[in-house]
Amino acid sequence: MKTLVAVIGSARCTEQQAQLAESVGTLIAERGVVLVCGGKGGVMEAACRGANSAGGTTVGILPGNDAGEGNAYLTIAIPTGLGNARNALVARAGMAVIAIGGAYGTLSEIALALEAGRRVVGLGTWKARDHAEAELGILSSKDPEEAVELALAGLNNA
Amino acid sequence: MKTLVAVIGSARCTEQQAQLAESVGTLIAERGVVLVCGGKGGVMEAACRGANSAGGTTVGILPGNDAGEGNAYLTIAIPTGLGNARNALVARAGMAVIAIGGAYGTLSEIALALEAGRRVVGLGTWKARDHAEAELGILSSKDPEEAVELALAGLNNA
Amino acid sequence: MKTLVAVIGSARCTEQQAQLAESVGTLIAERGVVLVCGGKGGVMEAACRGANSAGGTTVGILPGNDAGEGNAYLTIAIPTGLGNARNALVARAGMAVIAIGGAYGTLSEIALALEAGRRVVGLGTWKARDHAEAELGILSSKDPEEAVELALAGLNNA
Amino acid sequence: MKTLVAVIGSARCTEQQAQLAESVGTLIAERGVVLVCGGKGGVMEAACRGANSAGGTTVGILPGNDAGEGNAYLTIAIPTGLGNARNALVARAGMAVIAIGGAYGTLSEIALALEAGRRVVGLGTWKARDHAEAELGILSSKDPEEAVELALAGLNNA
Repeated sequence: MKTLVAVIGSARCTEQQAQLAESVGTLIAERGVVLVCGGKGGVMEAACRGANSAGGTTVGILPGNDAGEGNAYLTIAIPTGLGNARNALVARAGMAVIAIGGAYGTLSEIALALEAGRRVVGLGTWKARDHAEAELGILSSKDPEEAVELALAGLNNA
Repeated sequence: MKTLVAVIGSARCTEQQAQLAESVGTLIAERGVVLVCGGKGGVMEAACRGANSAGGTTVGILPGNDAGEGNAYLTIAIPTGLGNARNALVARAGMAVIAIGGAYGTLSEIALALEAGRRVVGLGTWKARDHAEAELGILSSKDPEEAVELALAGLNNA
Repeated sequence: MKTLVAVIGSARCTEQQAQLAESVGTLIAERGVVLVCGGKGGVMEAACRGANSAGGTTVGILPGNDAGEGNAYLTIAIPTGLGNARNALVARAGMAVIAIGGAYGTLSEIALALEAGRRVVGLGTWKARDHAEAELGILSSKDPEEAVELALAGLNNA
Repeated sequence: MKTLVAVIGSARCTEQQAQLAESVGTLIAERGVVLVCGGKGGVMEAACRGANSAGGTTVGILPGNDAGEGNAYLTIAIPTGLGNARNALVARAGMAVIAIGGAYGTLSEIALALEAGRRVVGLGTWKARDHAEAELGILSSKDPEEAVELALAGLNNA
């Protein structure tokens, strides 16, 4: 079985976030790891493009009913028809999760991944504190290399 | 059709949070509004107990397969079998959402509710800021009365 | 907690099926049982209309994102956004299921209900046999009275 | 993007069904098509073993929370945590579906696939007729070769 790492972020992103995502995707693929994401544009598309350029495999867990709604760099498209309830599946699909930027959907995926016990690495993403001032249990990274290294640390077959 | 308001928070909570939740539940029921929640213990149970004591109706959207896993104050239990993917359903089930305290599951519900365009009112809950330092679009409240008032403001039939 | 019974069938149905569904809905409500369904038109709407006329409570587990897509006789609308994956929730939501007519969606709900261990009563619905010629484990009924009686037989609080 | 074909059937099956499933899996892989299934044992495992032996890729859409619950021949495991609501995802994940034997879960997937407009090919599986005596719209096949040929007929890139 292949190791999967999820990359999450918005379907609309800045040029800088797209560059970070593309580098993350390339580094994941170079490690022989499969990239899984929500399958749409923006951060997701840039990460898939990076993985693709390095000969990697990409999986998109899509919100809609149609495989055709995925970005052009998906190896495998899974149209779920679940709408944003599919965020729970993306959050759980990877052994670890790398979050880049992101809006509310990404925040929900970070929280769902943490609830599911997944390691979450942030690269310029949400910061949050609960009612008792405890911070989100995510690992902060300064660049794509560190993000991928932190995500893969401790995974058996990576 | 009845108006529904969702109350979200942890299955384990402090005594103070339980008191807040119970008051919120009572106030919702007194307004003739149906309370919907994740159906489990803690904040959810306290809110249902409050609604129940005021003669209100409560709906629990449960993560597991069995209606029996719900708290003792549910009028209607919906066992979804979806695990934490049911968070998306709870977030969307109310016309508005009141968040009390809460851990990762609650944070995911806040984010999913905002993504779905629901009004979210916080009562001692998560604070978050995205990569561009924009804050979560939730309304802060100081007590149960204000929380329920903010949640119901603008709803047609409340 | 209220006892729920699910009524399943197509959003498009014959006049005769609508009459059967309306009678089933009325009889369920007269027994003090909550009717749960997919919340749309046809058999679902007719059953809700029947329950409504007898002062009963109806719950619609909707495929889309908007409570407004439900029929006019719903007491409580749960917009899931899950598309036809919500069929699994409808199948599981009732302690028993009554199937009237129906197309592929109804057949999936019958199968999911049986897989979940629910009692299923048919009223002019699908017949099926597996590869070993074993028939679907559903109870056949000749009219609404018998359907409701079979559905409620053995439920504790009905 | 790769073309996916789903193979559905029970986690417990006869030796003969396992042989049919293994042949179907091998033939799918030989055509360069990705096999998607529910990821568990029985028919699913046999089909994956066949695809694996021919160097193909297999995707398992699992009901539980843990990738480890999948069979030993999965290339990519997607733990959904959705329980049997994941049947809707399996039914939709392939451009076409091949059903071998099967119990209630398989029947639900056949129905959900037909509702989603997927081509469904049967190999010793359920037969069903609706209230108007119309038969299930599935294509019957006599052996694995015909099943795969019918499933792939008309798919653009197979």
